[in-house]
Amino acid sequence: MKIDFKTAMHRLMDAEDVLILTHANPDGDTLGGAFALALALRQRGKRARVLCADGVPERYAFLEIPPEDDFTERYIISVDVADRTLLGKAVEESYGDRVDLAIDHHGMLRLFARESYVEPDSASACEIVYLLLLSMNTRITKDIADRLYAGVSTDTGCFCYSNVTARTHRIAADLLDRGADVAGINVLMFETKKPGFLQLEQQVLQGMQLFENGRISLLTITRAMLEETGCRDEEIDPIVALSRQVEGVRIGITFKERPDGSWKVSVRTHEGVDAAQLCAQFGGGGHKRAAGCQFDGDKDAAAQRMLQAARLLLD
Amino acid sequence: MKIDFKTAMHRLMDAEDVLILTHANPDGDTLGGAFALALALRQRGKRARVLCADGVPERYAFLEIPPEDDFTERYIISVDVADRTLLGKAVEESYGDRVDLAIDHHGMLRLFARESYVEPDSASACEIVYLLLLSMNTRITKDIADRLYAGVSTDTGCFCYSNVTARTHRIAADLLDRGADVAGINVLMFETKKPGFLQLEQQVLQGMQLFENGRISLLTITRAMLEETGCRDEEIDPIVALSRQVEGVRIGITFKERPDGSWKVSVRTHEGVDAAQLCAQFGGGGHKRAAGCQFDGDKDAAAQRMLQAARLLLD
Repeated sequence: MKIDFKTAMHRLMDAEDVLILTHANPDGDTLGGAFALALALRQRGKRARVLCADGVPERYAFLEIPPEDDFTERYIISVDVADRTLLGKAVEESYGDRVDLAIDHHGMLRLFARESYVEPDSASACEIVYLLLLSMNTRITKDIADRLYAGVSTDTGCFCYSNVTARTHRIAADLLDRGADVAGINVLMFETKKPGFLQLEQQVLQGMQLFENGRISLLTITRAMLEETGCRDEEIDPIVALSRQVEGVRIGITFKERPDGSWKVSVRTHEGVDAAQLCAQFGGGGHKRAAGCQFDGDKDAAAQRMLQAARLLLD
Repeated sequence: MKIDFKTAMHRLMDAEDVLILTHANPDGDTLGGAFALALALRQRGKRARVLCADGVPERYAFLEIPPEDDFTERYIISVDVADRTLLGKAVEESYGDRVDLAIDHHGMLRLFARESYVEPDSASACEIVYLLLLSMNTRITKDIADRLYAGVSTDTGCFCYSNVTARTHRIAADLLDRGADVAGINVLMFETKKPGFLQLEQQVLQGMQLFENGRISLLTITRAMLEETGCRDEEIDPIVALSRQVEGVRIGITFKERPDGSWKVSVRTHEGVDAAQLCAQFGGGGHKRAAGCQFDGDKDAAAQRMLQAARLLLD
C-alpha cells in the first residue's frame, strides 16, 4: 500500500538492521539514494548496507561506502525501483517479496513492497531521499551531499531535462552549500568519455535509421559493437539520450542487445509524446520522456512493432 | 574604472535611451543578458535596443525582442564583453571607445568602458544581470526569466561545469518559479543536434590528435569541414567542449579556421590547469577552465607553439 511522507519518515526512524536495494543496471540515482540513506541510518547508530544485483559500475565507484559487518537484515528498503523484476534476477529471487518500503519516483510503479512512498513528480529518487533525511534531522554531511547530488544530477541529465523543478535547483543549492563536489562529480558522470565510447557512439550514429520524416529515430547497439569498442552495458546512457537529440526527432528508440540475445529497448521522447505509454504496450514502463521495455528473439520484428506503435502515438 | 554593485544599479536606473552591446559570435549568456536588460529598462519606461555585430544566430532567435523604434543612444552598455575587440569589428569601430558601462564576469577583463562592474566569480553574466534587475525592483516576467535562464544555462554547460555555485542554482530556482521554460530552452540549446552537426562531430573526432600520454587533445575544424556539413561557426561549441571530455585529457585545444584563413583557438581544461593563463601567452584570455586566443597563418606552427606551452603548464 502507499504511505504518506510522514509515515515513510517514521519507518526510516524506526528501522533497524537495514538492507537497501537498488535496481539492476544501476545509475547514479538509485546508487546515490541508497548509499546516502545508508550513511544517514548509520549516523543514527543503525546498521545498514546496500545491495545491487550488478555491483557498482566503475564510473559510480566514488559513491560506494564501506560495507557494514555482516548482519541479518530486519528491514528492507528499495530506492528508485519501479518494479520487483528491476531488482535483477538474483536479488529478486532472494528479496523480491520481502521489501518493507519502496521509495520511488516512477509514475507507473507496480506496487511490490509492503509499503511504498512514491512521488511521481519528483525528478529523482534522491530528491525524495533528501527530503526524508532532512525531516529526520539528519546532518547532511559532505559524503551524503555528494551522493544525493549525483542522483539529482543523473536523473535530470545535469538539470537539463523537463523533469527539473524549482525544488530540484533549491535542493542542489543546499547540497552545494553542504560541500557536494559538483565539478568533480559531473566531470566523472557527464564529461568523461572513454575513447572506446566515442568509437561506439560513431558506429551507432552511422547506423541510425530515421522514419516518419525524421520524427522517429532508431539506434541499434549489438554485442559485437560493445565488444569491439570495449564498452559496457551501463555506459550507453548518453547514446540512448542522443536518440532524441537529432533535430526533428520526437521519439528516439534504442535497441540494445543483451548477452542472452534478447533486446532491451529504451525510448526517449520530447514534449507531447508519452514514452511510458508506448513502452507499456510491450509490458514495460517508466517516465513520460524516458521509458523502456524488452523483446526476446528477432530484432527486426520487434522494431517493426515498436515503430508501428510509435507512429500511432505521433498521430 | 571599476564600480561597485550599488553604483552599477544606479547607473541602470538613471540611464536613458540605452544601446546594449553583446560580444560577436554571440552565445546565450551575452544575448540573454542583453535582451533581459533591455526588457527591464523598457519596463521602467525607457527606450532600449540590443546590437550584436553578427546578428542573432538561429538557435538563439527565441531570445530576441521587438526592436525599439530608432533613437539616438545616450547611454551604452556592454554585457559579457571582456575586451573591446570582442565586440566585433564594425561595432568596435562605431562604439568601442564609447561604452559607458561594462557588465561582465571575465577575470582577465581589460577595462575598456568608462565604468565596469565585474564579478569574476559569477558563472554567467546573466547571474549579475539578474541581481541588478532584482535590486532595481524589476518585475521578473516570464520573458525576462527565459532570457536570464538561457544565459545561466549556457555558461554553466547546463549546470554541469565547475563554475556553478549554490547561488547559480538558487537563481535558476527563482527563474523557474517565475515561469522560465527550462525544458524548451534546454532542448533548443543543448538537446538539438542537426544531422550535419553530428557529421561534423564525427569528422572532427576522427582527426583528433592526442599528446603527452593522452593528456592533451588537439581538434581541428576547417572551413571545408564546416561547408561540407553545412554547420556554422557558432554551432561548434559542443565540439570544443568535447575536446576535454575524452578520458585522461587535461587540456583540450580546438583550432577552428576562420573565413579569412586565420585560426581561432579554444582551450578547455580540467581542475588544476589554467586555460586563461595558457591563452594569455598568445594574447588571448578568458576563464580558468575555458579560454581562447587566435593565430594568423600556418596552423601547424601555431599548434606547435600551443602544444609546447600546454606541456609546460602540465608539468
